[in-house]
Amino acid sequence: MKALVYHGPGNKAWEEKSKPSIIKPTDAIVKILKTTICGTDLHIMKGDMPEVEAGRVLGHEGVGIIEEVGNSVGNFKIGDHVIISCVTSCGKCEYCKKSMYSHCADGGWILGYMIDGCQAEYVRIPYADNSLYLIPAGADEEALVMLSDILPTGFECGVLNGQVKPGDTIAIVGAGPVGMAALLTAQFYTPAEIIVIDQDDNRLEVARTFGATHTINSAKVNAIEKVMELTGSKGVDTAIEAVGVPATFELCEEIIAPGGHIANIGVHGKSVSLHLEKLWDRNITITTRLVDTVTTPMLLKTVQSKKIQPKKLITHRFKLNQMIAAYDTFGNAAEEKALKVIIED
Amino acid sequence: MKALVYHGPGNKAWEEKSKPSIIKPTDAIVKILKTTICGTDLHIMKGDMPEVEAGRVLGHEGVGIIEEVGNSVGNFKIGDHVIISCVTSCGKCEYCKKSMYSHCADGGWILGYMIDGCQAEYVRIPYADNSLYLIPAGADEEALVMLSDILPTGFECGVLNGQVKPGDTIAIVGAGPVGMAALLTAQFYTPAEIIVIDQDDNRLEVARTFGATHTINSAKVNAIEKVMELTGSKGVDTAIEAVGVPATFELCEEIIAPGGHIANIGVHGKSVSLHLEKLWDRNITITTRLVDTVTTPMLLKTVQSKKIQPKKLITHRFKLNQMIAAYDTFGNAAEEKALKVIIED
Amino acid sequence: MKALVYHGPGNKAWEEKSKPSIIKPTDAIVKILKTTICGTDLHIMKGDMPEVEAGRVLGHEGVGIIEEVGNSVGNFKIGDHVIISCVTSCGKCEYCKKSMYSHCADGGWILGYMIDGCQAEYVRIPYADNSLYLIPAGADEEALVMLSDILPTGFECGVLNGQVKPGDTIAIVGAGPVGMAALLTAQFYTPAEIIVIDQDDNRLEVARTFGATHTINSAKVNAIEKVMELTGSKGVDTAIEAVGVPATFELCEEIIAPGGHIANIGVHGKSVSLHLEKLWDRNITITTRLVDTVTTPMLLKTVQSKKIQPKKLITHRFKLNQMIAAYDTFGNAAEEKALKVIIED
Amino acid sequence: MKALVYHGPGNKAWEEKSKPSIIKPTDAIVKILKTTICGTDLHIMKGDMPEVEAGRVLGHEGVGIIEEVGNSVGNFKIGDHVIISCVTSCGKCEYCKKSMYSHCADGGWILGYMIDGCQAEYVRIPYADNSLYLIPAGADEEALVMLSDILPTGFECGVLNGQVKPGDTIAIVGAGPVGMAALLTAQFYTPAEIIVIDQDDNRLEVARTFGATHTINSAKVNAIEKVMELTGSKGVDTAIEAVGVPATFELCEEIIAPGGHIANIGVHGKSVSLHLEKLWDRNITITTRLVDTVTTPMLLKTVQSKKIQPKKLITHRFKLNQMIAAYDTFGNAAEEKALKVIIED
Repeated sequence: MKALVYHGPGNKAWEEKSKPSIIKPTDAIVKILKTTICGTDLHIMKGDMPEVEAGRVLGHEGVGIIEEVGNSVGNFKIGDHVIISCVTSCGKCEYCKKSMYSHCADGGWILGYMIDGCQAEYVRIPYADNSLYLIPAGADEEALVMLSDILPTGFECGVLNGQVKPGDTIAIVGAGPVGMAALLTAQFYTPAEIIVIDQDDNRLEVARTFGATHTINSAKVNAIEKVMELTGSKGVDTAIEAVGVPATFELCEEIIAPGGHIANIGVHGKSVSLHLEKLWDRNITITTRLVDTVTTPMLLKTVQSKKIQPKKLITHRFKLNQMIAAYDTFGNAAEEKALKVIIED
Repeated sequence: MKALVYHGPGNKAWEEKSKPSIIKPTDAIVKILKTTICGTDLHIMKGDMPEVEAGRVLGHEGVGIIEEVGNSVGNFKIGDHVIISCVTSCGKCEYCKKSMYSHCADGGWILGYMIDGCQAEYVRIPYADNSLYLIPAGADEEALVMLSDILPTGFECGVLNGQVKPGDTIAIVGAGPVGMAALLTAQFYTPAEIIVIDQDDNRLEVARTFGATHTINSAKVNAIEKVMELTGSKGVDTAIEAVGVPATFELCEEIIAPGGHIANIGVHGKSVSLHLEKLWDRNITITTRLVDTVTTPMLLKTVQSKKIQPKKLITHRFKLNQMIAAYDTFGNAAEEKALKVIIED
Repeated sequence: MKALVYHGPGNKAWEEKSKPSIIKPTDAIVKILKTTICGTDLHIMKGDMPEVEAGRVLGHEGVGIIEEVGNSVGNFKIGDHVIISCVTSCGKCEYCKKSMYSHCADGGWILGYMIDGCQAEYVRIPYADNSLYLIPAGADEEALVMLSDILPTGFECGVLNGQVKPGDTIAIVGAGPVGMAALLTAQFYTPAEIIVIDQDDNRLEVARTFGATHTINSAKVNAIEKVMELTGSKGVDTAIEAVGVPATFELCEEIIAPGGHIANIGVHGKSVSLHLEKLWDRNITITTRLVDTVTTPMLLKTVQSKKIQPKKLITHRFKLNQMIAAYDTFGNAAEEKALKVIIED
Repeated sequence: MKALVYHGPGNKAWEEKSKPSIIKPTDAIVKILKTTICGTDLHIMKGDMPEVEAGRVLGHEGVGIIEEVGNSVGNFKIGDHVIISCVTSCGKCEYCKKSMYSHCADGGWILGYMIDGCQAEYVRIPYADNSLYLIPAGADEEALVMLSDILPTGFECGVLNGQVKPGDTIAIVGAGPVGMAALLTAQFYTPAEIIVIDQDDNRLEVARTFGATHTINSAKVNAIEKVMELTGSKGVDTAIEAVGVPATFELCEEIIAPGGHIANIGVHGKSVSLHLEKLWDRNITITTRLVDTVTTPMLLKTVQSKKIQPKKLITHRFKLNQMIAAYDTFGNAAEEKALKVIIED
């Protein structure tokens, strides 16, 4: 089969690899129908994650068809269409039993990272019963690729952890794909005001069409002052950090109202200053989270009932054999005005 | 009347002041029966809180007798014995309605800070109906002084925010009065293991008698290694910070298990490093809080039913006219082996 | 002034009454701008509530202008426009402090019931600071009349207690005004499917336009079978009872899925059969509640940000001096296709 | 091997059965070390559960040694000592993922009911990874038999669902084994007062030694009046029903305070009258639940740390070959003063 293979920092190829096969009775082999590229894949390509071995097939998102199942798999049969979760869950360790699949003792985020991933014609999925989700007949499968990672990430790490409630005023800092996923899913809880902050006018414009009630280009105006002005100097009930650098996290600290929630989604490479000298008596809550994908079934229901249109996140489409071109486009997201790209069979 | 008056950093006196009187119909005048000294009073005396005006009567804790009530006060009558809450609550602003009395628009912590306090023969209590609590006949009033501040502080900021649950392993960093209050009230939720960390062997010994299952002198051993050893390298479910300096907060960051809660109680004077590069994917929750004293009625029930003995926190007793001596003892807590001092009529 | 006065079962008159005046320092006098009629008012008129004394001015909903305030009132001044809450809250009793205003020791639902109410030119509001809500300039005041009672009732007793979540399938039994309020506010939480059940085709049609995804006329089809068919035999996650008779409550018992919530809003006159022989092992939760109106500030934000259009509930409009005609119309709701009527100055 | 076999109502025998063997790769065979008898076993023997087939080995509680595992079992190996959960959980169906193991699509309570159970020398456990719990070396295994069913039942259905909180006043109606388990585990949350109601003076005496602060023999005094007297006419915050007949459930309805929780544990054979005409406006919550055993790991920690002594529930001990005698004793619990009996190898 063909696959996108990582050959060390800066080196990748769409090349021949041997087709994966069942190793454990709980495995399934899935033929990829559609996959996509995540910001994390770009990080791996840059060499930010030296733990990834050369030869690894990247990718942890996609939908596909069950090609083969181990003899212990009960939820799926050959021919079923499935969503592949970016997080592998054994369903039987201490963390899985607490619905913290991200910390599964024999799983977590391993796909396209510790084991071969989804940017390929076929992928082996460990613990298939707990790591795949059946796609109902007639579903829009392209939209469902967004349920592999980006939608649960924005929702669980940002919206759920941020405890967004009806009538709230919230800020989303960062209008990349994951910030946009938080924007779309925050609306499940009907906040009154959603302020999106970014430095890219195009993304802010898109955010408006996705439901932002206010946008702030923090490269052009003082975002703190603007948020305080918009909120009558109170600050926001929830601030969602969707970038992953100190400046954006510390912006969240500045704009949070007493009693508010700062929900971090961003992948951070260094420590940030937590201004406890200001915040110790403000009754605030700060959360971190690696997506658990526990809400995938719920998100699937909202997609099926048309309460959310994750397809909006898709800006570009490619064929599997255009994988390198897809990487080029996604890697140049600002100029290409790219959010999520679909790469399909 | 006599009162402990702040005359600027390092200067205080037990001196004559005019007895307070009703200013608003919601006020009450309380004759002090017993009061105490808080670490915050020492901070004021050191000049750490320059916003406190010279001439201020200090103190925000105590029990007393209702001497006079404004014509709008309905919950109390002359002669009632009451607990004075350290937090004044109007009961009708946005924050009070959300049970965040600490951020009351016309109250919060003002007693012995923005208005004259309890280290005196009489004190004026604004919004008496919401800021005082009736003492049942026959109660041990000395024990109830601990309900003005220290017990709700340890409980709300540490135990409740830390979401202590049956079977949990928790760490309390700091075995001063507030850490001890967290230790006593954490046991309401029956954690399996309570590790107390401090640098004072005497306090650690006391912690043992108060229910700590393990103690660590962090001046003598590597506390991180010791906690990891005690927890099978998992870390603790809840880490309660009860000191207020960067080192202790950052210790909490090092020992927290995935999915765990860091509950800050400490009053911090500078920012701390939040190691998001390690914590972003650990599903942790960090909270800050100024005590709201919303749990005072509940705590009163637990004291009355003898489920907790807050009296254990009292190490020294003085008469009102020994106020300066009381300050000396409390200001020299380590050598005096002092936790809370009672100063009574 | 003129007022709608109850003179015993079946007897009412729009007649002269003396204008109310301040009795306690916490009172306010409000000049009524707009009021409405509640199903409960009809119950009183029928004699179902013999505790209501002859001579009582009815009505517990409305918006108005502050005419006069007691000397203890701090949140409002003469000329402020306000929403009158159907529930009076002292803000300082045990229940108010627990946000259970409905059980306020000196309040609760008393307006137009135990004390004179809002179907009049003026009304005295006890504990004005906690029982009135400021209307922002420029708001649509007609819509805000729905915040006195019906919207918080549907939301608190039905939606919040029913724990409606994104992706859920819910049923609302009863499409009268309160069921409709539950229908509108349930959408704050983005359930996937909302099944509305009633016996009136007109109301079911209206429910469709208000967001119901399915409607069932239980007079024409077997509602249990239909719900089971729609839910793949699982039943619903939440069943909201908005009628108040045994048959509708027992319908909820039949259609609830394992783990589901039955939220009762209906005012019941007799006991119902709780089929514990079927339900004991189904992990269900049943709730009852008298509206607390704790969510009024939140609902106001959702109205102001146009996330909900409570005005949809208004079907008829009258002048104050047409009060009797308004009662006639509302009392004949099915034929008049009436939901809520507005009676204005 | 020998086993206790049900031969239809009233007929049972301790007789030879073929030893169970692995059927599915997720199965384990466990050699029983200790088992016990549940009230449900008596119900089966009486013929109350006609769905139980003749030939069935009864029993759903016990501890044992892993004798053999299927090739998909990962959490256990031969020789491990384990607690057998009364509820079988596949870990991968919709309900298991929601921690509602009781409603597992391929499990739930099936042991000693739909498949052969634990009152035998060996038992086959389906989905062993999710249905067994490892016993730490050195644990008191007799005490841990209480974790198969009775302790999680009292805790999950009674205490957790009843939302017992520090300072609360609670009532437990029924002082049989499950009521006693609720009594022991309620103390994890430090309620101020625990009122136990039963008709057996011996059991009430035992309840006192287990932590009840008040006991009421409802055969001798009016329990409603007595509870109201003890609670200053307020009623209780939580009422736990641990009997399963209409009279005891309706007693809970009478004694529940506004805002309170009625947590049903009892297995009911007929419907009860729910007095909504009194309760519709009382803001109460009623819950039902079949134990999910999701708290078994947590309970194990509390036993290991000696926060609870489940061994207290054990009143009699037998050898496996005295199984019939054990049934006689347990079946005659009142006279034998029996709570739980241990039957061991």
